[in-house]
Amino acid sequence: MSHTTHQKKKLIARVSRLKGQLEAVERALEIERPCGEILQLLASIRGALNGLTGEVLDDHLHEHVLHAADEKARAEAVEEISEVLRTYIR
Amino acid sequence: MSHTTHQKKKLIARVSRLKGQLEAVERALEIERPCGEILQLLASIRGALNGLTGEVLDDHLHEHVLHAADEKARAEAVEEISEVLRTYIR
Amino acid sequence: MSHTTHQKKKLIARVSRLKGQLEAVERALEIERPCGEILQLLASIRGALNGLTGEVLDDHLHEHVLHAADEKARAEAVEEISEVLRTYIR
Amino acid sequence: MSHTTHQKKKLIARVSRLKGQLEAVERALEIERPCGEILQLLASIRGALNGLTGEVLDDHLHEHVLHAADEKARAEAVEEISEVLRTYIR
Repeated sequence: MSHTTHQKKKLIARVSRLKGQLEAVERALEIERPCGEILQLLASIRGALNGLTGEVLDDHLHEHVLHAADEKARAEAVEEISEVLRTYIR
Repeated sequence: MSHTTHQKKKLIARVSRLKGQLEAVERALEIERPCGEILQLLASIRGALNGLTGEVLDDHLHEHVLHAADEKARAEAVEEISEVLRTYIR
Repeated sequence: MSHTTHQKKKLIARVSRLKGQLEAVERALEIERPCGEILQLLASIRGALNGLTGEVLDDHLHEHVLHAADEKARAEAVEEISEVLRTYIR
Repeated sequence: MSHTTHQKKKLIARVSRLKGQLEAVERALEIERPCGEILQLLASIRGALNGLTGEVLDDHLHEHVLHAADEKARAEAVEEISEVLRTYIR
């Protein structure tokens, strides 16, 4: 990933927030919070994870597909996208 | 979509099969088949719909992104992909 | 599915609408509409299909889980739900 | 969540593994690993998160729906499931 320093920091900050959200699930399990609450925490983690994934996919589409160094690199980046999408849309 | 005639026929055949699967759900509801059976029919329709969507996305990536007429067309095709993905990965 | 006649009609009407949406995709493919348009049609079909599935799951939870005839029937209905969910959340 | 100590430990162990997987993404972003690799790490986190969610849903269905203390508690547990499912199947 050859992102700008700014993008990189933004993505890493999102991963940190996700870790914080997982720690909240850990604590909720420890102190035996209601299932419904834990399911809602998990649903919001899923939303945050999908948001992060969308961001990385977008960066990938713009940097490695749209602004690819050459046709070979572009073809490889398209294959990578295609493979990843198959795991999301199945 | 500027697909080859072959690809076009293949995609239309998939849509026809999906319609057939929906008719099976219609009949199952009519004759009041068990819920579990209807839920399984719906799950397999979802799989078939996702398979079709993956196919169209792949065609799009190859024909309009990889083999775009020019940079402007490629940028537009990338935006279209990006928008669609946001509705799937959210 | 032992739904009321009203619920049954509502569900069948949703399936009919879905068939209509698939026919729109068929026509769009036939006359070679842009990929982006076809992908948007497919995304809205997915939304409608998920809405229908949510409806059937809800009916199932209320009629066969909550108001089960007996404990054995309830246990079976819970297993059915559990299996279906595994295909959606994986 | 009134899980047995065994179940609770198992779920917490899964959350710990997920945190470890997120730390791998953090490192991969730091040392600028290829996008495709990061997307694959994110896809496997999504799989693990969905696995954990499926586990919690299953526990919920069995403990709070199937073996509910009374009808009122069961009705509430069914509503919770119904709400959570709407965020997954939409």
